[in-house]
Amino acid sequence: MNLEGYRGSALEFLKSKRLNVGDKVRLRAKGLQLEGVLMPSYSNDDRIVVIKLNNGYNIGISIENISEIELIEHFQLKETETKTSDQFKKSEVKIISTGGTIASKIEYETGAVRPALSTEEIIEFEPEIREIGEVSSEVLMAILSENMKPEYWERVADAVTRAFNEGNVGVVVAHGTDTMTFTAAALAFSLPSLPGPVVLVGSQRSSDRPSSDAPINLYAAVYTAKHAPFGEVVIAMHGTTADDYVLIHRGVKVRKMHTSRRDAFQTINGLPLAKFLWSEKKLKLLSSDYKRKGELKVDAKFDPRVFLLKFYPGMPVDIVYWLTDRGFKGIIVEGTGLGHTASEFAEAFKYATEKGVFVGMTSQCLFGRVNMNVYTTGRHLLRAGVVPLEDMLPEVAVVKLMWGLAHHKTMEELKSFMITNVTGEINARHLEEYFPRWHHGT
Amino acid sequence: MNLEGYRGSALEFLKSKRLNVGDKVRLRAKGLQLEGVLMPSYSNDDRIVVIKLNNGYNIGISIENISEIELIEHFQLKETETKTSDQFKKSEVKIISTGGTIASKIEYETGAVRPALSTEEIIEFEPEIREIGEVSSEVLMAILSENMKPEYWERVADAVTRAFNEGNVGVVVAHGTDTMTFTAAALAFSLPSLPGPVVLVGSQRSSDRPSSDAPINLYAAVYTAKHAPFGEVVIAMHGTTADDYVLIHRGVKVRKMHTSRRDAFQTINGLPLAKFLWSEKKLKLLSSDYKRKGELKVDAKFDPRVFLLKFYPGMPVDIVYWLTDRGFKGIIVEGTGLGHTASEFAEAFKYATEKGVFVGMTSQCLFGRVNMNVYTTGRHLLRAGVVPLEDMLPEVAVVKLMWGLAHHKTMEELKSFMITNVTGEINARHLEEYFPRWHHGT
Repeated sequence: MNLEGYRGSALEFLKSKRLNVGDKVRLRAKGLQLEGVLMPSYSNDDRIVVIKLNNGYNIGISIENISEIELIEHFQLKETETKTSDQFKKSEVKIISTGGTIASKIEYETGAVRPALSTEEIIEFEPEIREIGEVSSEVLMAILSENMKPEYWERVADAVTRAFNEGNVGVVVAHGTDTMTFTAAALAFSLPSLPGPVVLVGSQRSSDRPSSDAPINLYAAVYTAKHAPFGEVVIAMHGTTADDYVLIHRGVKVRKMHTSRRDAFQTINGLPLAKFLWSEKKLKLLSSDYKRKGELKVDAKFDPRVFLLKFYPGMPVDIVYWLTDRGFKGIIVEGTGLGHTASEFAEAFKYATEKGVFVGMTSQCLFGRVNMNVYTTGRHLLRAGVVPLEDMLPEVAVVKLMWGLAHHKTMEELKSFMITNVTGEINARHLEEYFPRWHHGT
Repeated sequence: MNLEGYRGSALEFLKSKRLNVGDKVRLRAKGLQLEGVLMPSYSNDDRIVVIKLNNGYNIGISIENISEIELIEHFQLKETETKTSDQFKKSEVKIISTGGTIASKIEYETGAVRPALSTEEIIEFEPEIREIGEVSSEVLMAILSENMKPEYWERVADAVTRAFNEGNVGVVVAHGTDTMTFTAAALAFSLPSLPGPVVLVGSQRSSDRPSSDAPINLYAAVYTAKHAPFGEVVIAMHGTTADDYVLIHRGVKVRKMHTSRRDAFQTINGLPLAKFLWSEKKLKLLSSDYKRKGELKVDAKFDPRVFLLKFYPGMPVDIVYWLTDRGFKGIIVEGTGLGHTASEFAEAFKYATEKGVFVGMTSQCLFGRVNMNVYTTGRHLLRAGVVPLEDMLPEVAVVKLMWGLAHHKTMEELKSFMITNVTGEINARHLEEYFPRWHHGT
């Protein structure tokens, strides 16, 4: 049963009618007959039922006004909408939808945003993508990206694999922005060799809104999937608050750096791979240092027993013992500065590493590189077995370690994997301009 | 006994002589007679003893070459060097040293950096600060800042209080850069009203190095402490990689954003309060929105039972139950995007809040503001009692909560304190230019 968001009397009402979110229903309320899809509700009023009408609008109806309600068709979310795929047998780019704002509509009754349930709806937001080439679609899941998990990453990797096997030259993954960089990293480690680009795309403003970045981002993503020369996992998101260009970021070097701006995604410790110029409809490469297209290789398996530990003064050291005894196999420390914690942690990390837990160090500064040889604390930690992870982003290190744990039997192998640049996640050389320019007044 | 860093035969040797780090010693090695201070050692060679000679250089001597070693004077770190303070009875600015790179010398033998033991040494790095006014100093502690703890914040607040009570118009706190923003926030909440500026200062490059930012930062800090019109806790650090100006950041709105650059400290979600122009030796205010000087009020007490939880896909929800049952009184969540975690955390947070744990939400984006009303997950979390903390930095929220827990008896009071802008940690209005400009190629 799925009656997400319903509580109290509306929940009882819908249960008694054996209805589920997504079901097509016909109802009569105050003499009016309506047809539509039962939507999830997060109304504060627990008597409200939300229906998405055929014209696309949502309507909230109080149950005491509903005189009749009947089921027209049961909802069934197919894991793969093969029907849709068959329709576009010769598609060049496939859009795999996982949910998120780019696949969302505003819930009329509550004003809130909910993931939509079909990829066709996405294409409707920007019908011009059809001019780029043949596009097909698949609704893989419809979740808000904060609910992404390692096991879903495996499903996304499988869907990407299927899409390439069907003959597409590039794949677009529509995804919520919250955890998009985690999924991008997961795909990057799972798909070490690709016959074409895998482009994750999202939007910061819902597609129904005039200020939405969804259409342009989606166009740029499909264009990149078809035309880019690389076989890499990338993220396509607005480069500025204007609509002038979309940045194509390497999936393992990018962070969501703002809660709401359209240009929230920015490359850290590197430059984006390319930018898509909107008015010229042109992809401009910013680097020639990318992975060429190759044979498809896929190996998507993750061991989620990893903890991300962001250090702060006063953090109790026993968290490390707890994580170790609790069966965690890896800890990514987000340390201070060049890669530090309070020195009392050295003993705890020693305990962890001796029990076979991998402990890796990244920096909460985000920019720059870990260097644990400068200060005594760093050397203490090194001696305790903590592994410095260069300029890897903490979030990327977490995903890489989850992949590494599922693939490497010995600690030696795992360590070697973690400090090796596998897919651009470690950048050996930093340029001055990688650090952004802050405004310091005039 | 303090023989930090010594192991093996050097440790045994020094123990047998009953010597401690910091002791003044005289020794004879290969016919040479030397006098100096016994330094900590982190040599990989465990037979090496490190002595700081009177000329300031460190020397490493293997114990088999030491024919004689004798104690001249026991080391005693006075909590307050009242002697020093007395010497400068009429000082205008007091420098309180806590340690860190700005108070560090390179360890000659190992090439590593160690905190120095006297503030007078700091003044020596930039004797020109004496031209600003009468300067006095106090060595409060000599630690690397990653070893800072809430109980030390209380000691720093006390030292600042003493300095103002002695008649100084401003106070400088020399501090390691790793956790400088945490201490700045702690002082800001502990000193809600100040008769003058409290300026934390550090350096990214050790004072012995020609590229050191220490002299200019220190000059700017002392100048600001004496001349700035505000009664606020600020951080003075290089504004660019050149030596053109030092930024004066509000202590609760700044982050160390790079592991090694001299302009690592940048204001987030706001503008710096001022900049100190080096060649003109002039302080330029960037804002008139600051706290005026007032009567000294101090109330430094922290309850460290707070955990900073940075969310990532795959984070096991039972960490929240563990933290609650383990006696933590507060959790600051560093959520994704507008302030989210996987929705399954809602139930866990409900458990926590019902047990009297304060749960506050910040964003790992760092820039922008938490808004938990946009998506269903956010509203779920709100209903579970999670408190959205606006645009507060996660680190600042941790410190504020530690202070709040030590001062507020009821949850209502604590919540109200946490969502109120107490000292500039919440910025109601964001300007376009607060988001830095990233380089996107040409």
